[in-house]
This record gives sequence, C-alpha cells and structure tokens, in this order.
Amino acid sequence: MSALPHAFDPAEQQAVYRAIRERRDMRHFLPDPVDPDLLARVLEAAHCAPSVGLMQPWRLLRITDPALRQALHQQAEAERRRTAEALGERGAEFMRLKVEGIRECGELLVAALMDGREQHVFGRRTLPEMDLASVSCAIQNLWLAARAEGLGMGWVSLFEPTEVARLLAMPAGAKPVAILCLGHVEAFYARPMLEQENWTKARPLSEFLYQNRWGEQAWP
Amino acid sequence: MSALPHAFDPAEQQAVYRAIRERRDMRHFLPDPVDPDLLARVLEAAHCAPSVGLMQPWRLLRITDPALRQALHQQAEAERRRTAEALGERGAEFMRLKVEGIRECGELLVAALMDGREQHVFGRRTLPEMDLASVSCAIQNLWLAARAEGLGMGWVSLFEPTEVARLLAMPAGAKPVAILCLGHVEAFYARPMLEQENWTKARPLSEFLYQNRWGEQAWP
Repeated sequence: MSALPHAFDPAEQQAVYRAIRERRDMRHFLPDPVDPDLLARVLEAAHCAPSVGLMQPWRLLRITDPALRQALHQQAEAERRRTAEALGERGAEFMRLKVEGIRECGELLVAALMDGREQHVFGRRTLPEMDLASVSCAIQNLWLAARAEGLGMGWVSLFEPTEVARLLAMPAGAKPVAILCLGHVEAFYARPMLEQENWTKARPLSEFLYQNRWGEQAWP
Repeated sequence: MSALPHAFDPAEQQAVYRAIRERRDMRHFLPDPVDPDLLARVLEAAHCAPSVGLMQPWRLLRITDPALRQALHQQAEAERRRTAEALGERGAEFMRLKVEGIRECGELLVAALMDGREQHVFGRRTLPEMDLASVSCAIQNLWLAARAEGLGMGWVSLFEPTEVARLLAMPAGAKPVAILCLGHVEAFYARPMLEQENWTKARPLSEFLYQNRWGEQAWP
C-alpha cells in the first residue's frame, strides 16, 4: 500500500519508530552537565503534548539546589525500603535493583499536576484523572526527544507525593507525579532494565489485543 | 555543542521533533479503511511504551462491530450533553465544537487499564495511578507513530467508564480510559483545534517552569 498523503517520508518514519523502540527508562547516568539549549529543546517537546480540553496541566520544576536534590534522593530511598517491605518475599531481590539515578544525573526535574484542576470539566467530568494522562503524554514526548538527542531519562515514582509537594512548596491541589532523571549515559540498555535483571519478562502485544469485547481474540 | 555519542543523526532528530510538533488531537476523519499492516505497526509502537515495574497495564480493544461503534458513539454523545450542562454559560458554545469522530474514523479502538492491578506494587505503592501514566505513554507512542504514517488520531474521554466497561464486557477491576479514533484525514489542524475554534488559548512553556520551588522563576 502506498504512503498516505500526509505521511512523513520513509526515513523520517523510521526515525520516529527508532526513538519509540530505543527509548529506555534509565537509572544509570554519567554526571556530565546537560547543555542548556538541549534541555530547552526537550522541554519544548514535552510542552507540545496533547491535553484534555487544552488545560495544559503540567508544571515542571528544575532542581538545581544540591540540598533539594539530596532531599529528593532521601525520599526515593525511604520509599524504596517501604516498597521492599510491601513486596514480601521478593523484597531482598528488589533491594538489589538500581531503581533511580537521582544523585548522578546531569539534570533533575520534577513533573507535577497543577493546582486548580477542579475548574476544568472538559473531558474530565467522568474521568478526572485525564489530567495525569496529559502530563504523561508530555513526559513521553520529553523521553523520546531526549532519546533522539542521545540523552537518557528515568521516571521515578518511588516517593510519597505529600512529602515531595512539601519539599518543593507546592500549593494545595498540586501534586508531584514524577521525579525525572535526565542526563548523559554510558550506554542505553538493549532491553528494559527490569528484563535484563530478570525481575520480570515483558509479554507480547498479541496477549493484550481483543476484538470488540474483552477476552475475544483479536484479528490474526 | 557537538552531538552526544548516542544521539540520532540530525535528520532523524528533526523527524522525531516534527512528529511531536505536528501531532494533533483529530476529530475530523475520512471514512477510508486503515491498512492492516499500518495498524499493526502503530499498535506495536504503543506496546513499546515504558510501564511502571514493567507491568504493561494497557489492553486494547479493536471495535469492528458496527452496533458497538454506534453504542460507543451514543455514550460519547450522552456525556457531551452532560458536560455542556456542567459547563453552564459556555455549554451552548461547547455544543458547537466537534469533540469526536467515532462514527467516521476508519478504525476505532478502546484503551483500557487491565484488571488485577492491585498485585503490582513496584512504583505504585504511593502512586497507584502510575498504571494510567503507563497507558498514556503507550497512547502517545501510538499518536506519534500514526502522525508519522499520515494517520490522524483523537483521544475521546467523554464517556461514563462503567457504561463502556459494561458494553465491552470488561472484568471487574479493568477500566476504559480512551476511545481512540484512528483514520485517514483530509488535513491535520495547523494548531490545536480548540485554539482554532477559539475555545481557549494555549499558554507558553515559560509560565509552567519553576526552579527548585513552586513559583520560583526558572532559569532565563
């Protein structure tokens, strides 16, 4: 079948698929600083994200204060231990995984949901969590742009949101949803790190596709 | 500054940024069918998404039954009217917007959160909604791949999730989060449709960036 009228040319398409395929959730970073122009470009990519009712619910904090970086690391470390306890028999195995690179990465960002979200009804009356969906699309844009630029990124969700909100002086109604480690890397993982470390195995798409109703086999 | 060791070449980088910049939330579609190989490629792109603890919480239903498509349209239409009521003085203006293309698009998909999510603690002990974040990253991948292929996509969140779950025979614990319209388009919007229709105006990134603490000016 020939390309559609608005299709990118084949080389461009392959580049988009390459970014999607080679993006990784990174936890190992080199400490080199990130070029400010590069940082600005990937943040603008995030800001191109779709948002429900065009509410643009994302807020991004760039952490440059070393004491704050250390405090965020402590938050993640405390939650890592609580998670290990919650995991029970796999707790010790979990503790051997590297789950974040907060202290090493060149740039540390925190992504948050804005305050005042209750005013936005468009597309959210029955699904108020669509604001998080929009922020997540922005973070995925950032991730893909970073990968194309050769920069690694990791999304850390091991923290107590009320504690991180307090540390970063967030107003009532705002909520941190991601600590984002961004920076140079020695190498990108060939496969998701949790697979490489034998924590779990990804399942193929075919197991997740249904036709018309849940559980009904999708087209071959 | 020279390119990083793992950077894509400049033309590839530009292609990635182009997809991010030119992706639109589409509501106007041509009825032409979508090539099955193309559909398979964009679904595989979705499946490349990151997920919290590699839980892969996304489930995708392809709607091929015309009666189900019609029922989903009725769900969106009912919620559109309830949203208009909730919007009060802007309700009439809202009713003039085209908010979905469920009946026209070549392919209709529903994205859902899987059942049994409570077993997954990794990265979700304090932020259980990270499953939705993962599904949203998958949908953003799908959106960008579709744009590169010249295919439009729209994310409809105007529906009552319990009703859509019932229609699609979802098990307890599963939850639909997106009706995805996918298809050929006459043209991609030059700007977000809600801007073109003067519903609202997007604000620049600079208003959403802080340094270290909420409200503190970001770097220039």
